[in-house]
Amino acid sequence: MPNMAIKHVAITSRRALTKCAKIGHTTVSVSRSLRKLTPTAFKTLRQAIAKVGHLGIMGQKIRLSDRELAANKVIMAVKKEEISKGILDPSQFTPGQHIFKTLTEVQKSPIFNLIKGMPKGGVLHAHDTALCSTEYLISLTYRENLWICTAEEGCKAIAFRFSKEKPTQKPVEDCIWEPMEEFRERRGEKNVAKYLTRRFSMYPFSKFVSNNQAWAHFMGIFILLDGLLCHAPIWADYYYNALKEFAEDGVQYLELRSLLPPLYCIDGDMLTTRDTVAIYNSELERFKADHPDFIGSKLIYAPLRGVEPSVVEQYVKTAVELNKEFPSFMVGFDLVGQEELGRPLIDFVEPLLKMPEHINFYFHAGETNWFGSPIDENLVDAILLGTKRIGHGYALTKHSMMMRLAKLLDIAIEVCPVSNQVLQLGVDYRNHPAALLLAANVPIVISSDDPSFWRCAPLSHDFYFAFLGIAPMKADLRFLKSLATNSIRYSALGGEEKRVAYQKWQEKWDKWIDDVVAQKYC
Amino acid sequence: MPNMAIKHVAITSRRALTKCAKIGHTTVSVSRSLRKLTPTAFKTLRQAIAKVGHLGIMGQKIRLSDRELAANKVIMAVKKEEISKGILDPSQFTPGQHIFKTLTEVQKSPIFNLIKGMPKGGVLHAHDTALCSTEYLISLTYRENLWICTAEEGCKAIAFRFSKEKPTQKPVEDCIWEPMEEFRERRGEKNVAKYLTRRFSMYPFSKFVSNNQAWAHFMGIFILLDGLLCHAPIWADYYYNALKEFAEDGVQYLELRSLLPPLYCIDGDMLTTRDTVAIYNSELERFKADHPDFIGSKLIYAPLRGVEPSVVEQYVKTAVELNKEFPSFMVGFDLVGQEELGRPLIDFVEPLLKMPEHINFYFHAGETNWFGSPIDENLVDAILLGTKRIGHGYALTKHSMMMRLAKLLDIAIEVCPVSNQVLQLGVDYRNHPAALLLAANVPIVISSDDPSFWRCAPLSHDFYFAFLGIAPMKADLRFLKSLATNSIRYSALGGEEKRVAYQKWQEKWDKWIDDVVAQKYC
Repeated sequence: MPNMAIKHVAITSRRALTKCAKIGHTTVSVSRSLRKLTPTAFKTLRQAIAKVGHLGIMGQKIRLSDRELAANKVIMAVKKEEISKGILDPSQFTPGQHIFKTLTEVQKSPIFNLIKGMPKGGVLHAHDTALCSTEYLISLTYRENLWICTAEEGCKAIAFRFSKEKPTQKPVEDCIWEPMEEFRERRGEKNVAKYLTRRFSMYPFSKFVSNNQAWAHFMGIFILLDGLLCHAPIWADYYYNALKEFAEDGVQYLELRSLLPPLYCIDGDMLTTRDTVAIYNSELERFKADHPDFIGSKLIYAPLRGVEPSVVEQYVKTAVELNKEFPSFMVGFDLVGQEELGRPLIDFVEPLLKMPEHINFYFHAGETNWFGSPIDENLVDAILLGTKRIGHGYALTKHSMMMRLAKLLDIAIEVCPVSNQVLQLGVDYRNHPAALLLAANVPIVISSDDPSFWRCAPLSHDFYFAFLGIAPMKADLRFLKSLATNSIRYSALGGEEKRVAYQKWQEKWDKWIDDVVAQKYC
Repeated sequence: MPNMAIKHVAITSRRALTKCAKIGHTTVSVSRSLRKLTPTAFKTLRQAIAKVGHLGIMGQKIRLSDRELAANKVIMAVKKEEISKGILDPSQFTPGQHIFKTLTEVQKSPIFNLIKGMPKGGVLHAHDTALCSTEYLISLTYRENLWICTAEEGCKAIAFRFSKEKPTQKPVEDCIWEPMEEFRERRGEKNVAKYLTRRFSMYPFSKFVSNNQAWAHFMGIFILLDGLLCHAPIWADYYYNALKEFAEDGVQYLELRSLLPPLYCIDGDMLTTRDTVAIYNSELERFKADHPDFIGSKLIYAPLRGVEPSVVEQYVKTAVELNKEFPSFMVGFDLVGQEELGRPLIDFVEPLLKMPEHINFYFHAGETNWFGSPIDENLVDAILLGTKRIGHGYALTKHSMMMRLAKLLDIAIEVCPVSNQVLQLGVDYRNHPAALLLAANVPIVISSDDPSFWRCAPLSHDFYFAFLGIAPMKADLRFLKSLATNSIRYSALGGEEKRVAYQKWQEKWDKWIDDVVAQKYC
């Protein structure tokens, strides 16, 4: 459509100019300008062009119902106010700043509250142990039989472990195991809560000297949480609670990437990878029984990328086995870890080509701002390997051919705004490359990656920044609706599953629209 | 070409898949992946795609001579080293940081020195009183008959004025005029030099709370310099010196935007706008006589945009008159000032359409990161009004139709990397949107805007960040050469002038290539 429009404008402009050249009083050299038009004609043409440009933006062609149009008025009035304030004083505009400095401010925003209530569909990009709120993590440290290993004279938490007896293995030489309740008594309950709140997230570091340093800190949280979460019953509870928190934030579906670590039992015995999936699967069934309006959850097996190709060969075999046993749950494959430090996909092409067609790839690719690096080239390999979606794709806009292929092949980009900011790819959301994906109508979904580590809502903060910071000012309910429906459209749900999913989402959507019209959020 | 390639890949991939479906041992559902290819076939296809993608990038199709190929090897070896260091420790990579923190570091860079020596063609976007080095500005404060008006008990410089007698008019109520030599004596020469060095630039403020605040500070420098530079003989010397400093930085041509302020004489008499142009013109002739290898300079009349449409009507008349008297020198028109606070172009369409065809527009447009604002829409009006180039166009990539029109109509974007950073549009050069213009092969030129205010070389710093931070890692001599030739190709030079320009540039280019091959810069 925009393509057609460009051609049309070019032709119109050429015709107008030829005419001008003929009717001009003096000899007019034929130029590319439209200066011989009357101001009225100019403005008409200009409006037409602006309109066509606008319609090319993702979601703008959606037709809203009368109720939705009424809700849209409410939403846009609130949005306009927030933008106007921002233009008057950009230093107060939250999408121009780091989330760690604006978290409280954002939670007071009327737009944020509207978005919090909105049924947002599914989260298609999130990692196993970075889902739940800090409060929930701290509540887990009150569970029975938990030990903590501390260093630096009992001040620095190094690891956790559930055990009847004092654990025998030390994660580092000079750390000392003690029961969690003793640690809490010794340091004071409030101090411990404050300390763990910091250690379980990236706060207060809004500025790292580089994204490498940010990643090191980030990986440190995963490591610290390991002993706390990889205990089988906790793993089960953590996932159930994640589904609960996500549902409360207006998320009805979760496509989870997991390393699928073998879990440990209280007596130290280890379970298998298969058991980890089985635990997920049975918790999901339990959750769905308790919450019939929830759509569901699926699993993407996503082990670490910093390995030898032979290990990926093993990954592929594991994926095939797991999919065989859990065909409608364990449905996809990815590789995780900092792309810059791991290996590029091209190193693993041989084993990856052995993956059967029915197990989809959902590769991380292009999570970098190094233009022309091997990480950029992961975009090429991901697309050629037939990835169904691209995780992050932050660098995609720098590769116009890959961007057009993504559009042509209907590959959705999983955009994770807050994650990109915290992991130091960029600060100001108004410069986020996803704006260009919207403008070029490349399909995107909005995800939260690791909301636990930035103390954000499961999805609302990412939607908020996408709506207020990344999308054009005029982006409205059409945009929000297309983000929600995209998250179902580009999910791994099968045909009949999708039909049910849309239905469950639509019910909540209609209710929310009514609430918005009734000014329930204002 | 990339378009063709995409279609080709899509067809190839479809064919391969159909074939797979037929020959597969089990029933293979036709998918979009290429998983049935052998790893070797996959890698061949992948290389072809990467190659086509790469060739689509600006400048990559240039054929280099043998000498140039040899020079390219030297350049790329140095570049590779600088990039490798950056990847190992991104905190030390200068394009990831603010220029005010890395100025000294950059000047030590081997790549910077290579670029400093390179004949870079012309600067097509720079403003009248923001051209010369701080050292030169300070030297001007030693001229005879200069007065300074200070406030805050003689501590804060408010204005300058050349006058035989004490000036009678005060710029603000509570400032006091004193002869510059007395001020210098009272405060101490070193202190004054240090103080003025700060006041004549944006240093040390690498972070403003908003771009509005940055702009306020920025406009403050122009205002402070007003009385110092708008004295007729100084205006002449300043321009001559600018041409000299630009030539020494490898710039052979300057297309200057000027407000064309009426200048004052020592007795307080005022000259006319026409006189300002006449002074420029005669200084240019003097400079060209002294420097026969210099290509030249042209003028774009660029008055302030924050005015009523009736004032623009007057601007247009002035432009026509000036162009009549200086037809080969005063050749273009633009409007300047912060786009957010000024009026959008659409307000001025009526008077602007009256501009005769032979006076070109070179509009500032889209110097913002507010997506969907009226400033973005300046891009539409600029293009429809037939602008020959776009000043900044920072927001262009968010408007895919406008971006394609710019490419189709061969409108070059004047990219000013350092200016965008200092005026708070973005910090990390690796996120600068010009990368996407390169990737989409939209023509660009690199300019410096106001190098005086960031204490940068007339053009070398902007080239350095474009080469190392914005362009893909593999960008090489082809990229640098196309930037240089673009600056002539998209200039306002006429046909024969262009021929001479290329010739003068080529002579210097060949010499530089020889020097690079001879490792003169390493």
